[in-house]
Amino acid sequence: MAQHISYFSPGPAKIPDEVLAQVQEQLINFDTTGVSIMELSHRSKDFAKFMDKTEAVVRDLLCVPDNYRVLFMQGGGSGQFAAVPLNLISRTGKADYIVTGSWSSKAAKEAAKYGKVNYVVAKTERYIGVPDRSSWTFDPDASYVYYCANETIEGVEFHDVPEVPKGVPLVCDMSSNYFSKPVDVSKYGLIYGGAQKNIGCAGVTLVIIREDLLGKPQPICPTILDYTIMSKNKSLYNTPPSFAIHVLGEVLAWVKKEGGMAEMERRSVQKSKMIYTIIDNSSGFYSNNIQPRSRSYMNVVFRVGEGGGNEELEKKFLEKAAHQGLLSLKGHRSVGGIRASLYNAITIDDTQRLANFMKNFREENKI
Amino acid sequence: MAQHISYFSPGPAKIPDEVLAQVQEQLINFDTTGVSIMELSHRSKDFAKFMDKTEAVVRDLLCVPDNYRVLFMQGGGSGQFAAVPLNLISRTGKADYIVTGSWSSKAAKEAAKYGKVNYVVAKTERYIGVPDRSSWTFDPDASYVYYCANETIEGVEFHDVPEVPKGVPLVCDMSSNYFSKPVDVSKYGLIYGGAQKNIGCAGVTLVIIREDLLGKPQPICPTILDYTIMSKNKSLYNTPPSFAIHVLGEVLAWVKKEGGMAEMERRSVQKSKMIYTIIDNSSGFYSNNIQPRSRSYMNVVFRVGEGGGNEELEKKFLEKAAHQGLLSLKGHRSVGGIRASLYNAITIDDTQRLANFMKNFREENKI
Repeated sequence: MAQHISYFSPGPAKIPDEVLAQVQEQLINFDTTGVSIMELSHRSKDFAKFMDKTEAVVRDLLCVPDNYRVLFMQGGGSGQFAAVPLNLISRTGKADYIVTGSWSSKAAKEAAKYGKVNYVVAKTERYIGVPDRSSWTFDPDASYVYYCANETIEGVEFHDVPEVPKGVPLVCDMSSNYFSKPVDVSKYGLIYGGAQKNIGCAGVTLVIIREDLLGKPQPICPTILDYTIMSKNKSLYNTPPSFAIHVLGEVLAWVKKEGGMAEMERRSVQKSKMIYTIIDNSSGFYSNNIQPRSRSYMNVVFRVGEGGGNEELEKKFLEKAAHQGLLSLKGHRSVGGIRASLYNAITIDDTQRLANFMKNFREENKI
Repeated sequence: MAQHISYFSPGPAKIPDEVLAQVQEQLINFDTTGVSIMELSHRSKDFAKFMDKTEAVVRDLLCVPDNYRVLFMQGGGSGQFAAVPLNLISRTGKADYIVTGSWSSKAAKEAAKYGKVNYVVAKTERYIGVPDRSSWTFDPDASYVYYCANETIEGVEFHDVPEVPKGVPLVCDMSSNYFSKPVDVSKYGLIYGGAQKNIGCAGVTLVIIREDLLGKPQPICPTILDYTIMSKNKSLYNTPPSFAIHVLGEVLAWVKKEGGMAEMERRSVQKSKMIYTIIDNSSGFYSNNIQPRSRSYMNVVFRVGEGGGNEELEKKFLEKAAHQGLLSLKGHRSVGGIRASLYNAITIDDTQRLANFMKNFREENKI
């Protein structure tokens, strides 16, 4: 029998087994069209039906209000780093960025190509959580306030929607915790995320934008990043990444069947707690330096070895884990250590296997 | 038994049956990694091996010289309409566009956002071929000369590489005839194409660029459209559209196995000739108004009905064709009529079925 694999990759990441089986079965004949979803013309009636159905499940799961548009774009989160200012900064030429990790930092740097960026929280060398609200400084002229809901690399997550000045649109990168919990969309001007963590495979970016924010792109905005044009054309200005949209739809249908947003949140809390508890009860053998209130439910980042981490021991940890089928646990090269990504497709059982491994590894290697 | 379907869609388009079967088989366990290609981390060794292998087949089929880089990007041809000027126009701020159809026209309009565009051939209301070389006017200051090798909507193809002023880089949109014939890459500064016509599914854009053209993007170039950054990062600056790249690699491996570029060209000539011959021998029942020397081997565009086309008859043509499993033959809404797209995955047998249908349809409906 083949070894059971638990794949804790930060993205591209695990897709539910049921969804993979379903996508495989439908690959050659999509929904009785006689052709593959990869072949189906994006100008056909069958395709329009497919897009409507996919949008409907997005709207249903997140209770998207009627005055928001749902867009399927290309270019991933990195594409949105440019698209956001190119479409939204022209009102005042300025924007507020709440930088709490590597991804929001990258987004702020990209935005500075297109306008003036105000850093709401003081720059730090290391990211260890969401700084106290009392330390934030907003620019009263900002066209929008931007933040990243979950910093995949550092393992820092906002567990509440940040309070920002009234009337200023809030923009959020949800790439790594999209559809992992209920979201009050009405609090946002724009939400976006790449699909390859919680909602499918790489190649499609899901954007949800409040209608009144359309219509003001900078003249230099490339058409493929223009929300107004994409919205007018129902995401079919150019050929959309059909297959990736299909997988996204199948993943979300699975999420709905499993119980929707509340159930995904319950599981995420449970799974991350299983790992954080082992870290916290390891007498320093495992360590996580993120403020407890900002610890990510999606990406549990930790070091192995007393005194804040030992690279030799971490190498051994990764090797032994891999030997047991616990894969893709290496931390991002910029922070080192270990990272267990616990997206929706990671089961309680996968997490239990990792927890057991961590307990045994500590017993065998503690000083 | 299920009806045999011949799918003549202009893109997304038919993928070879063998490739679909192969992709389906490998969907859950890619190359013995134990995970799907959709799940595989783009920072893993297995992924690096996969990217190297895919690049190698591109280089092999088109004999790409060593001083050219191969990039896998997102955003399709429409994304490249912006990327080309954003990366290449800064040398002089000007560029030459040879507009021979809807796609090159769109590209020229997008380029005008980023610099001065010179129209090399006089604008016309209808596109009927590649105008005579003697009528072309180049701007001596152009940073590059741009053209579209095959206009999918009108069915206009360049059957030779256009002669342009010496030393000016030639840029070509090959989206709809990529890998349909041998290409002398050394004549180009840059070639690009979306994959969803001849080389796979939507979601990946294949760019081939001469090294010396890197390094001069405009400061406002979004990072995901920046050839220099993409090249430095071997197309892994951000998460690449892995699945679409995988399909592209499988399609090209099939092309190679079938005989490579020379064989694809031989088949394209044969297939398109089968349809053009019926048109030309139909005493005006079928008509194609493109200059014979510019007729596309990929997209055969024609009207049905004496006197240049009859919409009622065309509707009937499409209905009867669909009834026989000959699908997606409707012409683009901007030109009407019929379009048979004969990309690499369309077999001689598919084309023969269409040819037979056309003969019979004429017999039944001619005046």
